Amino acid sequence: MLLTAQTIADCLNGDIEGDSGIVVSSVINIEQGKKETLCFLANPKYEKYLYTTQASIVLVDRDFVLKHPVNCTLIRVDNAYESMSVMLGLFDTTDTLNRKGREYPSRVSWRAKIGKKVYIGAFTYISRKAIVSDNVKLFPNVYIGEGVSIGENTIIYSDVKIYPGCSIGANCIIHSGCIIGSDGFGFAPSADGIYKKIPQTGNVIIEDNVEIGANTTVDRATMSSTIICKGSKLDNLIQIAHNVEIGENTIIAAHSGIAGSTKVGSHCVLAGRTGLTGHLTIGNNAIIGAEALITNNVKEGKSMLGIPAMEAGKFRRSNVLFRNLPEISKNITELLKQYKNKMGEAI
Amino acid sequence: MLLTAQTIADCLNGDIEGDSGIVVSSVINIEQGKKETLCFLANPKYEKYLYTTQASIVLVDRDFVLKHPVNCTLIRVDNAYESMSVMLGLFDTTDTLNRKGREYPSRVSWRAKIGKKVYIGAFTYISRKAIVSDNVKLFPNVYIGEGVSIGENTIIYSDVKIYPGCSIGANCIIHSGCIIGSDGFGFAPSADGIYKKIPQTGNVIIEDNVEIGANTTVDRATMSSTIICKGSKLDNLIQIAHNVEIGENTIIAAHSGIAGSTKVGSHCVLAGRTGLTGHLTIGNNAIIGAEALITNNVKEGKSMLGIPAMEAGKFRRSNVLFRNLPEISKNITELLKQYKNKMGEAI
Amino acid sequence: MLLTAQTIADCLNGDIEGDSGIVVSSVINIEQGKKETLCFLANPKYEKYLYTTQASIVLVDRDFVLKHPVNCTLIRVDNAYESMSVMLGLFDTTDTLNRKGREYPSRVSWRAKIGKKVYIGAFTYISRKAIVSDNVKLFPNVYIGEGVSIGENTIIYSDVKIYPGCSIGANCIIHSGCIIGSDGFGFAPSADGIYKKIPQTGNVIIEDNVEIGANTTVDRATMSSTIICKGSKLDNLIQIAHNVEIGENTIIAAHSGIAGSTKVGSHCVLAGRTGLTGHLTIGNNAIIGAEALITNNVKEGKSMLGIPAMEAGKFRRSNVLFRNLPEISKNITELLKQYKNKMGEAI
Repeated sequence: MLLTAQTIADCLNGDIEGDSGIVVSSVINIEQGKKETLCFLANPKYEKYLYTTQASIVLVDRDFVLKHPVNCTLIRVDNAYESMSVMLGLFDTTDTLNRKGREYPSRVSWRAKIGKKVYIGAFTYISRKAIVSDNVKLFPNVYIGEGVSIGENTIIYSDVKIYPGCSIGANCIIHSGCIIGSDGFGFAPSADGIYKKIPQTGNVIIEDNVEIGANTTVDRATMSSTIICKGSKLDNLIQIAHNVEIGENTIIAAHSGIAGSTKVGSHCVLAGRTGLTGHLTIGNNAIIGAEALITNNVKEGKSMLGIPAMEAGKFRRSNVLFRNLPEISKNITELLKQYKNKMGEAI
Repeated sequence: MLLTAQTIADCLNGDIEGDSGIVVSSVINIEQGKKETLCFLANPKYEKYLYTTQASIVLVDRDFVLKHPVNCTLIRVDNAYESMSVMLGLFDTTDTLNRKGREYPSRVSWRAKIGKKVYIGAFTYISRKAIVSDNVKLFPNVYIGEGVSIGENTIIYSDVKIYPGCSIGANCIIHSGCIIGSDGFGFAPSADGIYKKIPQTGNVIIEDNVEIGANTTVDRATMSSTIICKGSKLDNLIQIAHNVEIGENTIIAAHSGIAGSTKVGSHCVLAGRTGLTGHLTIGNNAIIGAEALITNNVKEGKSMLGIPAMEAGKFRRSNVLFRNLPEISKNITELLKQYKNKMGEAI
Repeated sequence: MLLTAQTIADCLNGDIEGDSGIVVSSVINIEQGKKETLCFLANPKYEKYLYTTQASIVLVDRDFVLKHPVNCTLIRVDNAYESMSVMLGLFDTTDTLNRKGREYPSRVSWRAKIGKKVYIGAFTYISRKAIVSDNVKLFPNVYIGEGVSIGENTIIYSDVKIYPGCSIGANCIIHSGCIIGSDGFGFAPSADGIYKKIPQTGNVIIEDNVEIGANTTVDRATMSSTIICKGSKLDNLIQIAHNVEIGENTIIAAHSGIAGSTKVGSHCVLAGRTGLTGHLTIGNNAIIGAEALITNNVKEGKSMLGIPAMEAGKFRRSNVLFRNLPEISKNITELLKQYKNKMGEAI
């Protein structure tokens, strides 16, 4: 597919600076831009490439100011990052997501209810009482436990396993290797130090428009439900323990872990590898920095850092001094010495 | 199923305070308690809900002292947490765990030995020389390598992969996505910086009554065995490296990682995301706090915290001062200044 | 198989001290050495076992100096660790890796291209336009997306999932549960706080001689490719985000995570659970210590530690003082007190 700068500008409501007839056939990173490709510039770190790129067209923000002349055609848009995303969608030619129908061998209980235009990949297993809605895609090697329900248009990639009784909303994407509804980690110690399993009889509810990354695990509740509310996005290899609740439109990056019964608000951002201990409440719009270990409740809008975590600004001040401890310590030692010299054997 | 307070009290050896004829049909969290439900109170954090819950019955510890009157019927028991677990078992109605027989297509080597009342899910693969004992459940999409043995009553959930030669005990539960017996991470660097693989010819031995969470990985030993002793419980997404040994009845929470050849004692507790470097010995009853990085041996019964870890009490004292570093530093600076003023240019 | 000390010495170009006719039938750890077994000694921590082992033969480095007499036969070699690896390969009798041919049921698109002597396990799925080269082994329950190519002699263990368009080199080993090519974690927030998915249209390129551990995830690039260069070795449960590039012969231990667009050099070592934030450049031969959080570029050959990381030596000095903060603080308090006593109410 070839698109002209004019077509693209019309599509993105952008303004052209350069040759409106120039054509592109694919989207690429600005460092790798070459003839007939479209790039974008959003992160200032990459601005230097703009002046040397061989790309035909570059999308930039409307208010971007050129420092040097460029060889490419610019299209100015309200938000270069979002516009690039639209272009990527246009040029995405994989047909994987057009799959429909049932492949064999696959196993579908006659007591499961399967909607229209569903794709059921080979070696996929659907248990009794499961409900698979219209336009759902179940890739090969998926396991759907008994009584699981899956909303319209949801994509379940190869090798996802959903334990009995869980509920997945509409327009969700669940990546390969995700385990939804495995038992919560609950054991009662007896006097002799042996642990007895506490039955985990709840389930997992994932609301609409949620995306969950590869090999992430979401445990079922001991009782009632572990809940991920609509619009939240989870990265790879995350652990969500039993009875956790995650609000709407919250972002959680890879390797993060949330312990049992903790409630995370809406519009929060949890950076990579954050850890939240159990039974906490994290307010809306909180920002948890990379690797922070949260051991207390976090108020709405707060930004946290550190192990254990404190307010981010406070952590940064302490951390600067941690780095300077050798000098601080040297000053103290010197002071003690001089003081002793002047004052005698006082200390 | 409806149970009266009297039936429940008889079952749990408890004492009723309230209406012995009141009935419940399910178990639920105390925050969500409603008519015909049973709740329990063990964590004091949740006591406030006791006085407002709509639940019909609440289990409490025998010595619990009411601060206000309640609307529900109380049943006093020796251990509310354990009793709740018994109740959950009673109300667990999923029939998933009653599955028996072989589903098709599945692949079982004629040289494998399969016991009585075994469940073999569709798309499950059992290699030659494998031994699957009585009452074992292998859910769909399980892979059992050659020569693997699995003890009686063990449940292997969908998508568990067990490499050749590994041994799983009786009454174990292995959750979806677990990989048992993958190669240890062993490479010998040569002079030119290229790494040569060291063959990993050992296996993994998992003893009786062990539970392993979703997507956890247990590597095979380079030689001899990686061992998880009886009664230990592992959470999700844990990494157990080659030649590690874990004692009896030890608890390991999610995202923890144990490097090669480290030996962990019995009755230890490793909180979430703990890291243990290689070739260490951790004594019995040790407690490793959340995110602690253990780089030295730990003596029996010790409690450790920090990155790298030190004794927990010591870490807490240092950490309080870390938080106060800005003030401490200000005091020092002020002292230096005043000292200089009084003493002249000494420092 | 029985091998004499003479045969082994000839094979390893070693020198015998003891009985050249003594035989061994297997390889084992030195702590567990018994009659007819071969052990090795490389790590000085284990030297004590040399003097008490019941093993028949022990491999030691050529320049190793005995502190006491031994009962076993020694074979002195240039590198005991490497030689042990050779011996493990000799004694490895599992036939798993000799598998060939296609098992049924499996699903192979007629538009896929399959080489000679390929093993295709049952329940494995190969999509159209995939290229599987000679001698490749695909264990059961593997999913190969459309257009994926796999080089000669590569081993893909059970339950690996490779998304469309990815490319795996020759002589690679990919362990169970690995997900290659899942979507990068890219979302654009809109004004109302809702996240819109950015299409991930790139792929993953894994070069020759790479090994990837169990349940590790490698995300596809947003545009162009996520790349792991030849000879690099990745452990279990690692997260490699979109557009990351990893150089040649780099080692990454378990639970490490690398955020989007970061470039790691060649011959680097990343210890367990290291975290690298996005858009960084890590120079060749860098060493990232266990649990270090890298938030800035790292120069060639540097060794880093800490959260956030600094140069390892600097971290160690600061960390010693962190441990001593209680004493340092006590000294300061005492000094302040005495100063006040002597000088009056100055502070």
